[in-house]
Amino acid sequence: MKPPLRLGIAGLGTVGAGTLRLLEQNAALLEERCGRRIVVTAVAARDRGRDRGVSLANVRWFDDAVALAGASDIDVVVEVIGGSDGIGRRVVETAIAAGRDVVTANKALLALHGDGLARAAEAKGVALAYEAAVAGGIPIIRALKGGLAANRIDRVYGILNGTCNYILTRMRDERLPLEVVLADAQRLGFAEAEPSLDVDGHDAAQKLIVLGMLAFGAEVGEAEVPVEGIRAIDALDFRFAEHFGYTIKHLAIGRDLGERVALRVHPTLVKRGSVLASVDGVLNGVFIVGRALGPCLLVGRGAGDLPTAVSVVADLVDVARSKLEGTPGLATRAVKFRRRPVVPLDELESRHYLRFDVADGPGVLGVISGALGRHEVSIEQMLQEGRGGSDDETVPVVIMTHATREGRLRAALDEIARAPFMRARPRLIRIEDV
Amino acid sequence: MKPPLRLGIAGLGTVGAGTLRLLEQNAALLEERCGRRIVVTAVAARDRGRDRGVSLANVRWFDDAVALAGASDIDVVVEVIGGSDGIGRRVVETAIAAGRDVVTANKALLALHGDGLARAAEAKGVALAYEAAVAGGIPIIRALKGGLAANRIDRVYGILNGTCNYILTRMRDERLPLEVVLADAQRLGFAEAEPSLDVDGHDAAQKLIVLGMLAFGAEVGEAEVPVEGIRAIDALDFRFAEHFGYTIKHLAIGRDLGERVALRVHPTLVKRGSVLASVDGVLNGVFIVGRALGPCLLVGRGAGDLPTAVSVVADLVDVARSKLEGTPGLATRAVKFRRRPVVPLDELESRHYLRFDVADGPGVLGVISGALGRHEVSIEQMLQEGRGGSDDETVPVVIMTHATREGRLRAALDEIARAPFMRARPRLIRIEDV
Repeated sequence: MKPPLRLGIAGLGTVGAGTLRLLEQNAALLEERCGRRIVVTAVAARDRGRDRGVSLANVRWFDDAVALAGASDIDVVVEVIGGSDGIGRRVVETAIAAGRDVVTANKALLALHGDGLARAAEAKGVALAYEAAVAGGIPIIRALKGGLAANRIDRVYGILNGTCNYILTRMRDERLPLEVVLADAQRLGFAEAEPSLDVDGHDAAQKLIVLGMLAFGAEVGEAEVPVEGIRAIDALDFRFAEHFGYTIKHLAIGRDLGERVALRVHPTLVKRGSVLASVDGVLNGVFIVGRALGPCLLVGRGAGDLPTAVSVVADLVDVARSKLEGTPGLATRAVKFRRRPVVPLDELESRHYLRFDVADGPGVLGVISGALGRHEVSIEQMLQEGRGGSDDETVPVVIMTHATREGRLRAALDEIARAPFMRARPRLIRIEDV
Repeated sequence: MKPPLRLGIAGLGTVGAGTLRLLEQNAALLEERCGRRIVVTAVAARDRGRDRGVSLANVRWFDDAVALAGASDIDVVVEVIGGSDGIGRRVVETAIAAGRDVVTANKALLALHGDGLARAAEAKGVALAYEAAVAGGIPIIRALKGGLAANRIDRVYGILNGTCNYILTRMRDERLPLEVVLADAQRLGFAEAEPSLDVDGHDAAQKLIVLGMLAFGAEVGEAEVPVEGIRAIDALDFRFAEHFGYTIKHLAIGRDLGERVALRVHPTLVKRGSVLASVDGVLNGVFIVGRALGPCLLVGRGAGDLPTAVSVVADLVDVARSKLEGTPGLATRAVKFRRRPVVPLDELESRHYLRFDVADGPGVLGVISGALGRHEVSIEQMLQEGRGGSDDETVPVVIMTHATREGRLRAALDEIARAPFMRARPRLIRIEDV
């Protein structure tokens, strides 16, 4: 029997406390699976007083998480503090430098500094494990690193932010405005008091960057990834989407294009009844399209104390058995891991949902369809509602386009936006037939 | 660099040939990932003449697969012959006895002899890997063994047979009778000329037994698992299911009940819009409900040459790197692995869809509801159609029950079956709200 694996847990928020509880509840099982005990030697957190549902009597307490990361009696540092550049980063860097294995749930850190950290871990010969960083309750990292080893991955679609998915699901099902659902989500603990990281798409973008490293071996800058949140979506968009057989999901989309990659995060029309369309509520989903494998979807809780802790503990089991999948780096090395430029949205081609809120009147459709035609955007279907006859009325005109380059479409929309009958900026939602 | 890993592939059907192709196409990538080359040293198949799309010029050919399994210049035997008790079994047994690692796609063999083979592999210290045996294109074995290590699994729901799922999907979408879709599926290669193994549910049952070993550590006899196929389902059932907000899927269901397990395979009403309901066509899906993790769904191709070969190659990569997840045995050891009895259907409780094809006439509903009431089966909803008035007409009466023990319900149905107005055996489809 090997000596026990000694953990230091940096951060005792929901995930840290959940990890402690799981380790306690499953101690015997984990010992059997690892061939050694896993013991928590030290923890670091600010508030000593809070009840976390587990006894910390025999555990050394650090006020300074960085000091914990460098302590000599710890084998593995679990970093569940978060943040791309604060204490979380220093904890991970210190632990690697001290020759400790690291298990982290910190997607922001990985998205921004993952490659450097992976190289440092590789140089030191220590593990850098992060199953918990993306879609906490879904074993997506293992699926990408292990089970799909022989599968070149072309495309990844993710519903990666539970808050956005919860809000969109309730907007769709209950015809509620975003503000109402967001307030509810905040009350229920599904959204932060400051929801911007989630609702504006940045959280999903960070996770997509990590998936892009793994799936495509692509290192990209966060600023290069086009990101749109869900604030512009309203009930009318859901109604029209449904009319055309679609629903609206906030998707993170990655595509390997060889020299470049296309990564982006935005609301997307997906076919009702498709697998991604049915990933509802706080669930996350990742849809992988590989050359040999065909489509593969993984769905589960994206966050929460225990689901994420399950992933942390799974990494710990692998570290304990020295069986960590793949290199300590972030990429599967399925393709050469390297810095790659992100394709600008303007160069991407897709079908689009367009909505024009116009002052109803003669000639409106002619102007819109004329501008689209001049820019070679071809109309697949059009829907106009509520022609009341009065010139003061704002009515929506909805158009589904055939596949077209976004740059062309944007030029057309810029032209249309200047028309005197336009009452708001034209809206554009991309369509993906997955 | 370690010496190359020398493979012997027993069986060159679709999966064997697909494995050869993947190994050839991804040779450089696989060498990089494994730190060693993977070379096919020998193959065994009956027909030497067939073109399999890859060169076999430098490969030793065995007419006798068992001889291949014992050959001295092979490190890993890939068994893709199939069958629980024929050559496939002897190949695996011979390979283990000779100290070779084994990668197999043979679910029938594992369902029937998995535990004995795992013990033999363990005793010899060789790998027994089988990612390809269940839901070929879904990394479910790794998910259960690795990523969910700290998660006790309570329930598993699987759409495990692509043929059944394809047939049910087209019956639902195109209102076609089973025979027509089955004939189409046979023409398209989605169903065997002798479809019984698929359509009558035995294939799904074997896969469920393997999942039950992994998820619950339960060893059960194949004969103990209640199995119903899809032949009794007709278009009318789909119409009524939809009326009540459901669709019909052929599910394999496993539940850990401590001393016993409940494993069964049968058509099931699942809510429209639920994640399992949207797993359509030839896709497979496995839905796992664990204590810590919450629900987790994996969807992908269940069969086919390349998807299954991806799983074979993933196992080979792990063997090449000596990184195979978990013990060589079949169980995750999440619970003690042992023989456990299967709960008889009569003792299980669920809601039910019932259909009575009756000669329309006065008193029919009274007799049916009276019998149900006497056996304490409570009616949630009832629907009767097509009361034409003529006594010769056969009309369906459909009932959705509240949750009830199946034994009670069967007693009531036996009583009702004897009523003079009954034109066919009462039909029963279980409902699962997953």
